[in-house]
Amino acid sequence: MSYKQRIIRTLRCQNKNVIGMLAKVTSTISALGGDIGDIKTISLGTFHNIRDFTVGCRDMDHLEQLVTALNAIPEVTILAQIDEVMNLHRGGKLLVQARYPIHSIHDLQKVYTPGVAAVSRHIQDHPEDGYEYTTIGKTVGLITNGSRVLGLGNIGPVASMPVMEGKAALFSQFSGLAMIPVLCDTLDPDKFVETVMTIAPTFAAIQLEDIRVPDCFEIEQKLIDRLNIPVMHDDQHGTAVVSLAATINACRTAGLDLKKAVVGQIGLGAAGSSIAQLIMSYTGNPVLGFDPQPALAKRFADLGGTLAASQDEVMKKADVVIATTGKADIIQPASVRKGQIILALSNPYPEISIVEAINAGAAFASDGSHVNNLLGFPGIFKGAVAARATRITQEMYLAAALSIVDQTPDHELIPDPLNPELHNRVAQAVAAAYRAP
Amino acid sequence: MSYKQRIIRTLRCQNKNVIGMLAKVTSTISALGGDIGDIKTISLGTFHNIRDFTVGCRDMDHLEQLVTALNAIPEVTILAQIDEVMNLHRGGKLLVQARYPIHSIHDLQKVYTPGVAAVSRHIQDHPEDGYEYTTIGKTVGLITNGSRVLGLGNIGPVASMPVMEGKAALFSQFSGLAMIPVLCDTLDPDKFVETVMTIAPTFAAIQLEDIRVPDCFEIEQKLIDRLNIPVMHDDQHGTAVVSLAATINACRTAGLDLKKAVVGQIGLGAAGSSIAQLIMSYTGNPVLGFDPQPALAKRFADLGGTLAASQDEVMKKADVVIATTGKADIIQPASVRKGQIILALSNPYPEISIVEAINAGAAFASDGSHVNNLLGFPGIFKGAVAARATRITQEMYLAAALSIVDQTPDHELIPDPLNPELHNRVAQAVAAAYRAP
Repeated sequence: MSYKQRIIRTLRCQNKNVIGMLAKVTSTISALGGDIGDIKTISLGTFHNIRDFTVGCRDMDHLEQLVTALNAIPEVTILAQIDEVMNLHRGGKLLVQARYPIHSIHDLQKVYTPGVAAVSRHIQDHPEDGYEYTTIGKTVGLITNGSRVLGLGNIGPVASMPVMEGKAALFSQFSGLAMIPVLCDTLDPDKFVETVMTIAPTFAAIQLEDIRVPDCFEIEQKLIDRLNIPVMHDDQHGTAVVSLAATINACRTAGLDLKKAVVGQIGLGAAGSSIAQLIMSYTGNPVLGFDPQPALAKRFADLGGTLAASQDEVMKKADVVIATTGKADIIQPASVRKGQIILALSNPYPEISIVEAINAGAAFASDGSHVNNLLGFPGIFKGAVAARATRITQEMYLAAALSIVDQTPDHELIPDPLNPELHNRVAQAVAAAYRAP
Repeated sequence: MSYKQRIIRTLRCQNKNVIGMLAKVTSTISALGGDIGDIKTISLGTFHNIRDFTVGCRDMDHLEQLVTALNAIPEVTILAQIDEVMNLHRGGKLLVQARYPIHSIHDLQKVYTPGVAAVSRHIQDHPEDGYEYTTIGKTVGLITNGSRVLGLGNIGPVASMPVMEGKAALFSQFSGLAMIPVLCDTLDPDKFVETVMTIAPTFAAIQLEDIRVPDCFEIEQKLIDRLNIPVMHDDQHGTAVVSLAATINACRTAGLDLKKAVVGQIGLGAAGSSIAQLIMSYTGNPVLGFDPQPALAKRFADLGGTLAASQDEVMKKADVVIATTGKADIIQPASVRKGQIILALSNPYPEISIVEAINAGAAFASDGSHVNNLLGFPGIFKGAVAARATRITQEMYLAAALSIVDQTPDHELIPDPLNPELHNRVAQAVAAAYRAP
């Protein structure tokens, strides 16, 4: 199911119990461009069967087309359109629970008063043991103001919560640590920083999420400077780690040496600037970058990048082009050079489609639906927290990217993000790359 | 095990396998004033048995006395002194987990991108549905700066975390909702308020905890005024609810009508002023109060209380005396009136011991170890959140107290706080007492 499918519905479909009906239903959906996910048999009767088809659609009109077409098959009736995604979000996606259920007064005395007083006194005398004897040492705060969420923009903190819970749920599953979303109701970067500073003792590390440009740069830098725990804006560095891994793998597939290639970066926002910065750390050579916003261009030059005068200049000079503009179809097929490697990473609509890029002569092309942040942040934080790192260095980000590269099967762009072992190995690489200051 | 036992240890005890050893060990511990909790058999051998005795002691010296006395028994050897409380705090007491484990890319698409975007857009269009489709609607923020923790004082946010996790664990178990501790690293009430205001969208309600006097009054009032979700400082109102219930039950046991009695309150801090206020709501009569601090006395008068010139005046005039001074043995037995009801609630050392008060002629006496806040806060918040209350009113606190009274067995001061049904009934009473403004 591609990222362009923005609506997921489960169609509960009753059909006559005759041979060939499943094929008829699936081919009808496919013919109209619907993207079929899971198919689940609900009941098999003598005369009728009922199955649930999970289908990705472009929008509500597209869904309506599919339903009409299916109902037009004489043997088929759509009984219900189930919004499984909304249903499973009811009540939220995180559980917070007692690690030890309390069954007796004796349990209560150990977990709460009077037993707990001894633990508090111990931590008062040995503050560094706070990590060990509380959840602080395994909890990452996930902090957002909802000012730049997915492709949705500034939707505010509450509407961003489903995204935060999704990330926290993934993090908990794949790192074994805990992630707690905290919504910050402010668009003022200074107030955001002060708020995080004040609540920071709650956490072993801070992941910043979905904060708009340029505020995200200022907020992250101030928190890194003032806190002595790891702080990472995932939209910058998490994306950079996964993108570097994908770029290295793309070059291998195309038979190009990234360290000798001219790398071009179109779009120098949160993702673009960090990707370029990490690629420069990897290759030791400047990246050629372009962004129409002067402030972003200047920031990129300060990071050691070479500024191009135009997008065209990047397309002409670069062997590897990475685009993170947030703008669909901004790369014209005519501007693609033969043998170029193109990663058009904007979601949900890339700067150029894979098919167009390949048809225009690119040696390799991919889009953002294949470059999943989930590959990065669980292992990065797990490793940084395990090493008791006071910050996450470029070396640690590089180590994470190279670990992902190591774990990528031949001829794949990235490895399977749902493999728990992958995240353990990324964590080990990140922890090993930390050098105490 | 009483609250005066401040150290809990598990003594791993090996003894010869002969009749009478268990009795010998337990009587040795008891004779020295050790408080025996659970006894667990670790191994039963042909020649030796090993058992774990969980023992409450006054302090480390007391523990050493016990161990020495046990080792002096020829057939007994103490193999280890296990600090079970510290051990179970290792790694913390809360679990944060994904409600839906992610096994496939299909799961990922529903819980995270692209499926989650539809949920975020829905909440953007219908902000009131944020409660329903995220964890916000069932999560209470537990916020402290650690400035007045248990009997420990201003130990700071990190050292207070074991207490916060204990409360959060109890809350999750008994309310079915979630509680997330947030540590605030500030002693400035305004900064505390601003921080909570900024992160408030994360929560359905706010429980303030262990904040020093007088800051706690200002912080709670400002947050109640500015937020439209329930805010409660548990050390004030949670304590008041449970104390009122205990006072009503004490009066019943002693055959006194609280509504006609003169009630005296010694100590007008966070707990004392709120207890007096709630008793005044219940009886409709002013409470006679005393506190040596003029600011606290003035605040009490503003709440409608009658000021006494001295503690002695309270002891002379009141039929029911409630003491919350934090000072041990401050009530002289000679000052106790015949037939008086005395609740000396300071922990861990009461203003007068139960035995002394009864010997001095009190009709009924209790101390703080019998008045457990756990009876209140889970049901109060569960009820307030279920009613979607924008604040918690005195009527709701009264309803909680009366529900606890209703559920108290005859001749008991309070009901069993570990009974899950109790908290459900308190919640129902609180929700029913809410009137939308």
